[in-house]
Amino acid sequence: MATTLDCPIMGNYFGTARMRHVFDTRQLLQSWFEVWACLAEAEAEVGIIPTEAAEAIRRAAESGHFDANEIAQEGKVGRHLLLPAINALAREAGDAGRYVHWGSTTQDITDTGAVLQIKAALDIVEPAIRRLIDILIRQTKKYGDLPMAGRTHWQHAVPITLGLKLAQWIEELQRHSERLAHCRKLVLVAQIGGAGGTMASMGPKALAVRAAFCRRIGLGEPDTSWFGSRDRLGELVSVLGMVAATIEKIDLEVGRLASTEINELREPRHATQVGSSTMPQKHNPIICEQSAAGCKIVRGMVSMMLEVMVGCHERDWSSVAVEALVIPQAFIVLDGALQFTETILDGLQVFPERMAENLAISKGGINAEAVMYGLARSLGRTRAHDIMVDVARKAGEGRRDLIEVLLEEHREVTDMLSKEQLAELVSPQNHLGIANEVVEKILSRQAGARTEGSRAREKR
Amino acid sequence: MATTLDCPIMGNYFGTARMRHVFDTRQLLQSWFEVWACLAEAEAEVGIIPTEAAEAIRRAAESGHFDANEIAQEGKVGRHLLLPAINALAREAGDAGRYVHWGSTTQDITDTGAVLQIKAALDIVEPAIRRLIDILIRQTKKYGDLPMAGRTHWQHAVPITLGLKLAQWIEELQRHSERLAHCRKLVLVAQIGGAGGTMASMGPKALAVRAAFCRRIGLGEPDTSWFGSRDRLGELVSVLGMVAATIEKIDLEVGRLASTEINELREPRHATQVGSSTMPQKHNPIICEQSAAGCKIVRGMVSMMLEVMVGCHERDWSSVAVEALVIPQAFIVLDGALQFTETILDGLQVFPERMAENLAISKGGINAEAVMYGLARSLGRTRAHDIMVDVARKAGEGRRDLIEVLLEEHREVTDMLSKEQLAELVSPQNHLGIANEVVEKILSRQAGARTEGSRAREKR
Amino acid sequence: MATTLDCPIMGNYFGTARMRHVFDTRQLLQSWFEVWACLAEAEAEVGIIPTEAAEAIRRAAESGHFDANEIAQEGKVGRHLLLPAINALAREAGDAGRYVHWGSTTQDITDTGAVLQIKAALDIVEPAIRRLIDILIRQTKKYGDLPMAGRTHWQHAVPITLGLKLAQWIEELQRHSERLAHCRKLVLVAQIGGAGGTMASMGPKALAVRAAFCRRIGLGEPDTSWFGSRDRLGELVSVLGMVAATIEKIDLEVGRLASTEINELREPRHATQVGSSTMPQKHNPIICEQSAAGCKIVRGMVSMMLEVMVGCHERDWSSVAVEALVIPQAFIVLDGALQFTETILDGLQVFPERMAENLAISKGGINAEAVMYGLARSLGRTRAHDIMVDVARKAGEGRRDLIEVLLEEHREVTDMLSKEQLAELVSPQNHLGIANEVVEKILSRQAGARTEGSRAREKR
Amino acid sequence: MATTLDCPIMGNYFGTARMRHVFDTRQLLQSWFEVWACLAEAEAEVGIIPTEAAEAIRRAAESGHFDANEIAQEGKVGRHLLLPAINALAREAGDAGRYVHWGSTTQDITDTGAVLQIKAALDIVEPAIRRLIDILIRQTKKYGDLPMAGRTHWQHAVPITLGLKLAQWIEELQRHSERLAHCRKLVLVAQIGGAGGTMASMGPKALAVRAAFCRRIGLGEPDTSWFGSRDRLGELVSVLGMVAATIEKIDLEVGRLASTEINELREPRHATQVGSSTMPQKHNPIICEQSAAGCKIVRGMVSMMLEVMVGCHERDWSSVAVEALVIPQAFIVLDGALQFTETILDGLQVFPERMAENLAISKGGINAEAVMYGLARSLGRTRAHDIMVDVARKAGEGRRDLIEVLLEEHREVTDMLSKEQLAELVSPQNHLGIANEVVEKILSRQAGARTEGSRAREKR
Repeated sequence: MATTLDCPIMGNYFGTARMRHVFDTRQLLQSWFEVWACLAEAEAEVGIIPTEAAEAIRRAAESGHFDANEIAQEGKVGRHLLLPAINALAREAGDAGRYVHWGSTTQDITDTGAVLQIKAALDIVEPAIRRLIDILIRQTKKYGDLPMAGRTHWQHAVPITLGLKLAQWIEELQRHSERLAHCRKLVLVAQIGGAGGTMASMGPKALAVRAAFCRRIGLGEPDTSWFGSRDRLGELVSVLGMVAATIEKIDLEVGRLASTEINELREPRHATQVGSSTMPQKHNPIICEQSAAGCKIVRGMVSMMLEVMVGCHERDWSSVAVEALVIPQAFIVLDGALQFTETILDGLQVFPERMAENLAISKGGINAEAVMYGLARSLGRTRAHDIMVDVARKAGEGRRDLIEVLLEEHREVTDMLSKEQLAELVSPQNHLGIANEVVEKILSRQAGARTEGSRAREKR
Repeated sequence: MATTLDCPIMGNYFGTARMRHVFDTRQLLQSWFEVWACLAEAEAEVGIIPTEAAEAIRRAAESGHFDANEIAQEGKVGRHLLLPAINALAREAGDAGRYVHWGSTTQDITDTGAVLQIKAALDIVEPAIRRLIDILIRQTKKYGDLPMAGRTHWQHAVPITLGLKLAQWIEELQRHSERLAHCRKLVLVAQIGGAGGTMASMGPKALAVRAAFCRRIGLGEPDTSWFGSRDRLGELVSVLGMVAATIEKIDLEVGRLASTEINELREPRHATQVGSSTMPQKHNPIICEQSAAGCKIVRGMVSMMLEVMVGCHERDWSSVAVEALVIPQAFIVLDGALQFTETILDGLQVFPERMAENLAISKGGINAEAVMYGLARSLGRTRAHDIMVDVARKAGEGRRDLIEVLLEEHREVTDMLSKEQLAELVSPQNHLGIANEVVEKILSRQAGARTEGSRAREKR
Repeated sequence: MATTLDCPIMGNYFGTARMRHVFDTRQLLQSWFEVWACLAEAEAEVGIIPTEAAEAIRRAAESGHFDANEIAQEGKVGRHLLLPAINALAREAGDAGRYVHWGSTTQDITDTGAVLQIKAALDIVEPAIRRLIDILIRQTKKYGDLPMAGRTHWQHAVPITLGLKLAQWIEELQRHSERLAHCRKLVLVAQIGGAGGTMASMGPKALAVRAAFCRRIGLGEPDTSWFGSRDRLGELVSVLGMVAATIEKIDLEVGRLASTEINELREPRHATQVGSSTMPQKHNPIICEQSAAGCKIVRGMVSMMLEVMVGCHERDWSSVAVEALVIPQAFIVLDGALQFTETILDGLQVFPERMAENLAISKGGINAEAVMYGLARSLGRTRAHDIMVDVARKAGEGRRDLIEVLLEEHREVTDMLSKEQLAELVSPQNHLGIANEVVEKILSRQAGARTEGSRAREKR
Repeated sequence: MATTLDCPIMGNYFGTARMRHVFDTRQLLQSWFEVWACLAEAEAEVGIIPTEAAEAIRRAAESGHFDANEIAQEGKVGRHLLLPAINALAREAGDAGRYVHWGSTTQDITDTGAVLQIKAALDIVEPAIRRLIDILIRQTKKYGDLPMAGRTHWQHAVPITLGLKLAQWIEELQRHSERLAHCRKLVLVAQIGGAGGTMASMGPKALAVRAAFCRRIGLGEPDTSWFGSRDRLGELVSVLGMVAATIEKIDLEVGRLASTEINELREPRHATQVGSSTMPQKHNPIICEQSAAGCKIVRGMVSMMLEVMVGCHERDWSSVAVEALVIPQAFIVLDGALQFTETILDGLQVFPERMAENLAISKGGINAEAVMYGLARSLGRTRAHDIMVDVARKAGEGRRDLIEVLLEEHREVTDMLSKEQLAELVSPQNHLGIANEVVEKILSRQAGARTEGSRAREKR
């Protein structure tokens, strides 16, 4: 039976089946076999090994005749990560087996294989982020103009709209999406350097082999081997860590806004779902929390990858071996959080009447800035600020209405404003500033990007 | 098929079967069942539930009639971590099932269950560290007085002995051993607080239930619930991280001293072992490197647990859920490193002739300090230092013998010393200072501790 | 002008003057001079250098005739951290100058000097933590039995008391206090090893010098040098990081409970204090937030120290040099947080009526568990849980009273309970369980510890 | 007197004066004043405040009539970070003072001010990286074709050239350069959102104010406020952390290659420089080590910034306050490392004869792969590998010449190769593969980029 990530029970809470599949034993081996097949084909193309050998290796690689447990068992004995798989493939390839791994070194295979898995992982993560953006767009269109309390330092600040909150998430995810697109270009390169990055074992046609290999395997061709240059992977996991930070922020915000006292948002809930094993009234935002926990883990893994970048000499297994655990885990746990968050946002419950009630609980306090600027036009900002600090303090202490206290205590200044003017100043609706314009701009920019994107996809 | 930690191929490189077993699905479930059984027994003892109910729950808990996959499947539907297991146990317990989980809350079960697993994990890690110490003692006794180059800033400094290096590792591991013993006392406490730490659902006999429960389950009784006080676990993983740092230091030192140029130590090698898939001459310290990589991961997880400590309000699942991945993984990966390092140190290859050769490569340079102090007695430290800096520079540049240059360039001062005195000054053997005394002291302290320890064990 | 930590503006927000003083240039230099003086005295005591030389060095070390800027300037030229200070001290010591730094190496001085500074820093941090505990004891005695909502997953769970919350903080701080006491013993050791830890340059009386040196400087004597064994410092900063995590938890809890919707606690506020530059109603928990920010930084520094532990060979400046920034900063920033938190807890504003109001907002929901167990006695836990989940859902949706809904919808079961019994079940006061007993136990244990502590201090 | 970063002694070891200047108190204040001046001018332009007021505020902002200590003192009393500076500026601006900070909130000022400082810091860091690239290009041209041992797993692998090592550093730094350019565009945006990001206090012309403000202050205009969206800063510090990792790798590689046994490279050394306070022969790579230590600190700060990204609600001071320490420190410490590394690479000492000697120490072992492929053409890779593993083992154990052993033990296969062919196989010069082609390609790409870059600069 497996531990956390692959445990049938805990695995529901960390990661997704789709992403575990990308990094499981079968895919690990298959990615290596694919690298060996492409390598052989490239070498045959250039004339270093016989064409029939390459064909036999390709057939063997795709045969599916491999028993991971057997290969693993052989690995235990000899303590070389790759040789058991080389041997298995060579056996399957018959005579051509002698050409398996020709001119190559272990890290050529493990690195290129890992990049193939990363490619598959990015093909899951990138659309998942785009789906979150799409859902947020839909929810923003639906609920965007709802006024609610803006909260800073945990306290009511001024009114905002739900749309402003959601649109900022859209923007942040959009920037991550672009960061990942940039990463993808850098990171999806093959590794082929031979023992020391010189490809000396390939002979004079080495560069031609490299070009053919990269073309066949569908990855970029690096100027030089990156055995000891792990910045591309460091950046990748850093960006995953940043995505996690944003996802965590979203999850925690939904969870906090679902608190008993605030209760403005809620994650969706199955009809049969039970909130607590002991408290019947509970409606715990458990998806939010579980997702946020996963994000903490992903964030925490970034520092490991930055340390890996420092490895010594031409190749340093004591560093790069870290990647074999960290990269799969970062993708698996992050994808769990992405899927959880998709569920949360897709089925987000919104309670407008609670938002309105909460806007009112400070009896005008949330509009104290608006009133201050109403006065400031005649009194100057400093005087107006001093007066309103006094008013807000007294209103707060007595839990009284802000305007009432203002009228009572500072009649000299309120004489300048009509009752209607004062009423207008304390209406949250009148103090939303540019919220709606900002939201519209972000939505229309997204609409533009979508159109461009789909046009670009059509062209392909 | 599973991913890294549980993958049959990569799992050979990270972690051990013995530790994976502690944290696998079966043990996870079984630890929960044990908690429920003890809870029921404690409640029956105090008179809150019927004795027969407790007996039935105990029988059910030990029946082994559970299908983890089925329980997991039920979890997917309802999104409550524990209810499927509660239901499974309750079904098995028949009528007594209504008393399963009585008065308890989810985190009582998951926390206490986790502590049971931690106890089993510590029972593996602590002896593993003691075995490392024992091996180091044996190697120190065998090789302790071999002189070798002491290296600071990557450069030869002064001669030391291999024993001095090993004894410092003994000391550091010994301190970790004591830290873990301290942790163990703190961390092996049960969790029983009910929904909010008040045990209100247990009624007036709550404290008696708590005492009985902790006694039965064999864990300490905390003064209060620690739902929101995770410092014990934070400390535990910090100490695991510190152990990892020491293990990594040892691994890397062996690996570095196995480098082509130094070649004084080597990790053991199977007769059939292959160093590289392409370079026949290689004798890569692959166990050292793989172990060190695991240690980097363990160290990197400490910050996650410190963040978990900050969780909010009475209980915060978005924090504590992190532990379900981090704690098992820290133990599993660390245990892999411990086992690797046991192999390394147990079969450590030592090359005394290489040590002697390396001591000589600086042609006396490594004894420049000794010569300086030889001169300093008459010339003062500053003057002697200036002269020897000049001599060492010229000797180094010309790759000449230190004493030769000294005699040639500073005859005025060397006149004060006889040829024999000079020869003595440049003999590494004469410049080992307190190395042997220190090593003996550390060894005899260990011998004392062993005796005490075994006496203490006998008494039990 | 200085940057953040020493900046007159930002310095108010990070750190304290008292702790900056411990680690400023003057103390850095003075700690080195003290080490050299004690070293000379120890060497004189053993007969390695003349007594008058040691006396002259001591006088020079205490003369105060040093210009840090001048010493720093000399350092720029020669790129050796210590030589300018050695030279300055030697010049001041006249003829005895030749005996300054006799037999020693740079890291002997910098390490022992750092330990002297750490000692002074611990002398600030440890009492600061004890003061926090004392304040928490006082507040617990004053407010301990106030019922308030216990919150799990950000939602009302069951009633607790404020005392239960505070007492858990006391416990956690108490454990940190013990951890620091343990650290102190380990970390307050002198460093004296000479170039390679062998003290070879000290000649045959090396061990006697070591003993005398450690005695004179008032630090423990290590069995061997710890140039390359940094676990003591690693543990120290880990514990500081754990203290920071607890402090941050306290700060954030006060800050969250000061939120507009909850408003049960507040940090103290000066009469003249302004909450926001623009929002007059604001009462931002700015001390809580600033303190929490500092704690995040301290926590984040732990991983750096764990990495330092891995350093290579006998001494590794590329690792230990990290400590020169990290240790002072960890202490300075943590002390800022400790002082902020002392202010917060000492002047903590508590609003009992708000706690009572919040307990009521769920109209009985917070007592759903109590009602469930009321029913469970006759119906079994599962049936009672099912009924109450139904009741709580309907009550929540309609924002109706829990008991009202129960009576209306499940008359068959409520017939078993009298109206009085039902009323009792939904009184928070009746559902506090062992809260008060736990708090009393913790307070009395603290009282015991205080008495013991003061008795112990009297004995000295 | 100041602590580490600003300490006259330790400050030489961490950071640079040029970067400390960017983040010192004077610049902190001046950046705020600049923000207020631009804000007033923008508001005057749009017609919200009088033009004369804006002019007076601008004059005041540039007057230099401010005493940081006095402002700091006022801050201590009122615990508001900005009000003392607002008051100071307002006093200086006379009647116009009432318009200082009009419509704005604290974080508008601190965030935009911080971005101005970041801009100045990037103007130092980016050219510093380009200078490193230029120096590396120069050294590669000079030494690029020197053959040396390629080292993997700390052991000789196959021959490479020094150029290949340096060119990979060029590539990595070049990628960082591009990452920073990308960051720069994202991060150099102004912050202007008013209390909650809605700019409500600016009235209907808010968007016009925003546009004018961003134009005047020379920063990008964000679609919405980023009070709670800190991903730009998170990315910035992540990239600084990655730069640090690369710099550290370079430093450590130079330091390791300067080790007594290898001794192929050395950092430059002043004529007057002293290597050790006690060991005359030492030539410690102290600049490498100090620089690497700084890099460790910078890397370690990344996780703090990822955590800051998670902050709660619309603005969260307990998160963003972290930036005030982390961002300056990351820049200051990194710039120290960059400057140290410039010194190291600019004056890099290269010892070609040592490289040649080291290539020979394995007596052909480093060419075992070449010999294997020489045989593999006729024997197949597997057979050839088996033979050469046997040969290399025997040669290594007996410290004998590889070819000699091959001829002696496997005459059957060596008959296929002439003596000349065998000799060719063990010449490192013949086993450099594509090293030179790769280096040339990288250099010519850099030359192209330079030309383009300078052309682009001319066009401006």
